[in-house]
Amino acid sequence: MEFFVQVLFTMAVIFALARLGSIVFGKLGLPGLIGEILIGILIANIAGGAFMEDVLDITLHGEWSDTYNVIYSLAELGVIFLLFSVGLETKVKDLLGSGKAAMLCAVLGVVLPFVAGAALIIGLGGYDMNCAMFMGAAMVATSVGITARIIKDMRLMDVKESRIIIAAAVIDDVLGMVVLAIVEGMSESAGGINMVDLAIIIIKAVAFVLIAIGIAKYIVPRIYDFMDARNRRIKAQGKSPYTFNKLIFAIIVCLFMAYLAEYIGLAAIIGAFLAGMMFAEHAWEWGLETKAESITSFLISFFFVNVGLQVDISSLTSMDTVILIGAVIVLAMLTKYIGCGLGAKLGDRTIDKSSFSIIGVGMMPRGEVGIIIASIGLNAGVLSGDLYTVVVMMSVLTTIIAPPILSSLFKRKYKDEYAIMPEDEL
Amino acid sequence: MEFFVQVLFTMAVIFALARLGSIVFGKLGLPGLIGEILIGILIANIAGGAFMEDVLDITLHGEWSDTYNVIYSLAELGVIFLLFSVGLETKVKDLLGSGKAAMLCAVLGVVLPFVAGAALIIGLGGYDMNCAMFMGAAMVATSVGITARIIKDMRLMDVKESRIIIAAAVIDDVLGMVVLAIVEGMSESAGGINMVDLAIIIIKAVAFVLIAIGIAKYIVPRIYDFMDARNRRIKAQGKSPYTFNKLIFAIIVCLFMAYLAEYIGLAAIIGAFLAGMMFAEHAWEWGLETKAESITSFLISFFFVNVGLQVDISSLTSMDTVILIGAVIVLAMLTKYIGCGLGAKLGDRTIDKSSFSIIGVGMMPRGEVGIIIASIGLNAGVLSGDLYTVVVMMSVLTTIIAPPILSSLFKRKYKDEYAIMPEDEL
Repeated sequence: MEFFVQVLFTMAVIFALARLGSIVFGKLGLPGLIGEILIGILIANIAGGAFMEDVLDITLHGEWSDTYNVIYSLAELGVIFLLFSVGLETKVKDLLGSGKAAMLCAVLGVVLPFVAGAALIIGLGGYDMNCAMFMGAAMVATSVGITARIIKDMRLMDVKESRIIIAAAVIDDVLGMVVLAIVEGMSESAGGINMVDLAIIIIKAVAFVLIAIGIAKYIVPRIYDFMDARNRRIKAQGKSPYTFNKLIFAIIVCLFMAYLAEYIGLAAIIGAFLAGMMFAEHAWEWGLETKAESITSFLISFFFVNVGLQVDISSLTSMDTVILIGAVIVLAMLTKYIGCGLGAKLGDRTIDKSSFSIIGVGMMPRGEVGIIIASIGLNAGVLSGDLYTVVVMMSVLTTIIAPPILSSLFKRKYKDEYAIMPEDEL
Repeated sequence: MEFFVQVLFTMAVIFALARLGSIVFGKLGLPGLIGEILIGILIANIAGGAFMEDVLDITLHGEWSDTYNVIYSLAELGVIFLLFSVGLETKVKDLLGSGKAAMLCAVLGVVLPFVAGAALIIGLGGYDMNCAMFMGAAMVATSVGITARIIKDMRLMDVKESRIIIAAAVIDDVLGMVVLAIVEGMSESAGGINMVDLAIIIIKAVAFVLIAIGIAKYIVPRIYDFMDARNRRIKAQGKSPYTFNKLIFAIIVCLFMAYLAEYIGLAAIIGAFLAGMMFAEHAWEWGLETKAESITSFLISFFFVNVGLQVDISSLTSMDTVILIGAVIVLAMLTKYIGCGLGAKLGDRTIDKSSFSIIGVGMMPRGEVGIIIASIGLNAGVLSGDLYTVVVMMSVLTTIIAPPILSSLFKRKYKDEYAIMPEDEL
């Protein structure tokens, strides 16, 4: 019991502080999630982490405490439900409609950061080739959770830029996974990577995404038509039709898809997004969106606070590290901005300067994906400890810097259309 | 990451199986939660627990696995949100309105099971006095979660019997806590209990409940009137009034109240219930009920499955144990039935035979509270291992047996009014 009493206390404190941070930032006209991330940074660094470790029983460096296991799980469930909600608002035909622009956006948005990240480390000297490759890989993955939250909060799911960003982020994650697989393969086998293993991983990932889209496009409508016809038949006979809880069913699909995505090496959120997309055609009719949003609004704060918890300010002692972080952040933002903006423009000639900027900025946040890749590199002994800190800082800071820029770009472009969702309705 | 991939898998499997169990039992006209508990029993006992331990990574005897820590936390959060939802539908004046009947119902419903449980163990011989006291204490506490679920599902929150049951369950938990404190004190100090410590615990518990009710009755309406007047003033000035997310605020209060309840030795669910009651006057207007229910419907299955997971069928090898379990279950059910029904009747002369039965049966399930008390006794070395198994089986079986009886009693009495909530709407 002691264990759960501590969990309850830690949850209550984190949740209350996160909402306080969110409200304060909202009052300042900034995205509330930045306030939540900063609360996480505060919690992690007040009194050198003593508050976090002694009062909240959160230890996340080295062996995780039982309490942190639970908080981490709630955080991950939060972002899974967030992307599930985003999926519920993304119809397949809209996703496919932004196909070419999204594809080129994703490809250039992967290639440029990877090359720049690896080149920087090679140029600095003192690190080996594998280390440079991991640095490049950690620069690649866009964390769509943060951008998705802003798009959702502004109710701009339906504009062209949002669709390209969401579609590109899915492709980006698949490509990022491929890059990670290559880099991991290279670091493990001195003699070069095993092409067969690599091919299998790539095929699995692409197949997963395509099958999910195929199910959403071709199979789900048929199941729905079949059920609909059956229920009308039963009703015509004067009996009450068989109904089932659609939210529960959708959540089951979401959890399994999230698991499957993780299982084949993609991020869980991609599975959750695809699961949501399968129900998008009827999400409104079944009230799935509001219901999923209630769950999200309970869990998502844990995710943003957890992003902040990763930041250990005390590691920023050397001036060289600070300069390196600055350089990496500038590179990380510039290469996504140019790569993604340019890619979208090459794929869709109607993309103007303002759309270019929105897409470029929307793809900037690295969130937890970069941190995950870096921690794989760290655990494999390939990435050095100082570069790990650099990647974590880069991931967190791109996540903090991009949202206010994105939301002001959106506001300028869609000044007549956007709507900040009142806190009340979330 | 490995850790969370396993958590996702375990969650998905448990959630899907639980809903399957619920649907099958619903089709049979039985409460779905029984199906969920049976799924838990199945999971725990298939192949001697190999499926649970090896596939789902759940080890709950001895050192808990990381996965089980998370599943257990979700389960507890589920029952916390369930009682929070029940609280949202319980207005203070309704709770206080059933005062005398609920009070006598709770008192007799505590005294009779305690005396009977202790007397049985003393009568059997071979156990010491402390062991008998713990057995009595474990017989005391009603787990209102299961009854609350049935009442909510049938939309019978407003009938007299439901109000008495809910009010009595709150008082019952306070009394149960007092009994536990006495028994624990006796077992720790050979020379008798420390009356000062005991008095402090009792005062804390009673004060907690009374203060919460006082806040709900006197302070919350004033805060609401103040906010309301302020918002009208701001609106009159042509500005948009300050709004805040009521669900989030209510959840924060719920988590802190649940923690406080645990902290002073009550069950977390009592805090959650009282927190819900504070918002009951405006829960409907603010849409809190449906939102809280979405969260509950995601989490509550983990609670019922977890009740089933506690059952280790392989411990039922000795015929003596099986007979003892049978005797304890009969005693546990009879004493609650007579004690609670009679208490309610003494307090409210309008209670007829059918209301007597509903209240008596509604107070029968012991759920996890009995298990918690038994495990305290086991860990303190006071309760023997076989009696622990007996208590667990008694808790689970009263929880399984009571709901179908209760729901058929309700159906008979309120055949024109009850409504089985369609699966769809939950």
